[in-house]
Amino acid sequence: MGTIHVLPDDQIEELLHTAIVGRIACRGDDGIGGGRPYLVPLAYGYDGTSVFAHSGPGRKLNLMRAEPRVTFEVDEATAPDRWRSVIAEGVFEEIDDPDQRLHALRALYPPPAPKPSLGPNTVVFRIRITSRSGRYEIPD
Amino acid sequence: MGTIHVLPDDQIEELLHTAIVGRIACRGDDGIGGGRPYLVPLAYGYDGTSVFAHSGPGRKLNLMRAEPRVTFEVDEATAPDRWRSVIAEGVFEEIDDPDQRLHALRALYPPPAPKPSLGPNTVVFRIRITSRSGRYEIPD
Repeated sequence: MGTIHVLPDDQIEELLHTAIVGRIACRGDDGIGGGRPYLVPLAYGYDGTSVFAHSGPGRKLNLMRAEPRVTFEVDEATAPDRWRSVIAEGVFEEIDDPDQRLHALRALYPPPAPKPSLGPNTVVFRIRITSRSGRYEIPD
Repeated sequence: MGTIHVLPDDQIEELLHTAIVGRIACRGDDGIGGGRPYLVPLAYGYDGTSVFAHSGPGRKLNLMRAEPRVTFEVDEATAPDRWRSVIAEGVFEEIDDPDQRLHALRALYPPPAPKPSLGPNTVVFRIRITSRSGRYEIPD
């Protein structure tokens, strides 16, 4: 058992920049799962303003196109009472412009990583972050 | 870039048993956040059937009491194209019975960890898992 505190802004930014995988939750209004939210992990990049990712066709894209307002989360934990996390509200936006796609892919795969070859059906998108908050817990 | 596969049942169970923190998403129908789902990390225990956790009063409990059908997620990642994850559907249930509370706390804090002293307002609850599926990605 520990005590939960507010994570300072600089640590919010650090966690958003360093985590490998985050999660998005969006409304699951397609009749699957009894109305539960859709929740899925996402390898992502971050440029200080938006989260960038890509995806093939499927339920995730269908749901975000129908309702672009999503919640994004990252965390890191070393024990049940020693963790930090960020929860952000954001808006899903597809990226079609070639220059913006390049920016997104560079955030996702910073050099010297090779730029990936995306399939013809792959959608590149951003989650434009509109608000964020962080928490951390340390043992008593 | 890698290829995504279906995670076998034994690895689904292993990941549910070993992860420190999972995340729950529930409907955010209280007018906060523009109708976005509520998404929050959760230190948890698992007994093969249910996820156990506890929480003080707040938005998480209010929302799950209003709509007990939640989505639960765990993952582990070592690179953007090397991860595994489990997504489960479940039902929130508060635990009041003393024997069941002890079972829940033992799943959360396995011996030899000391049993925590919970505050008078702390709610112990389970997410009874009703379905689960897993995925993993490995580099091409």
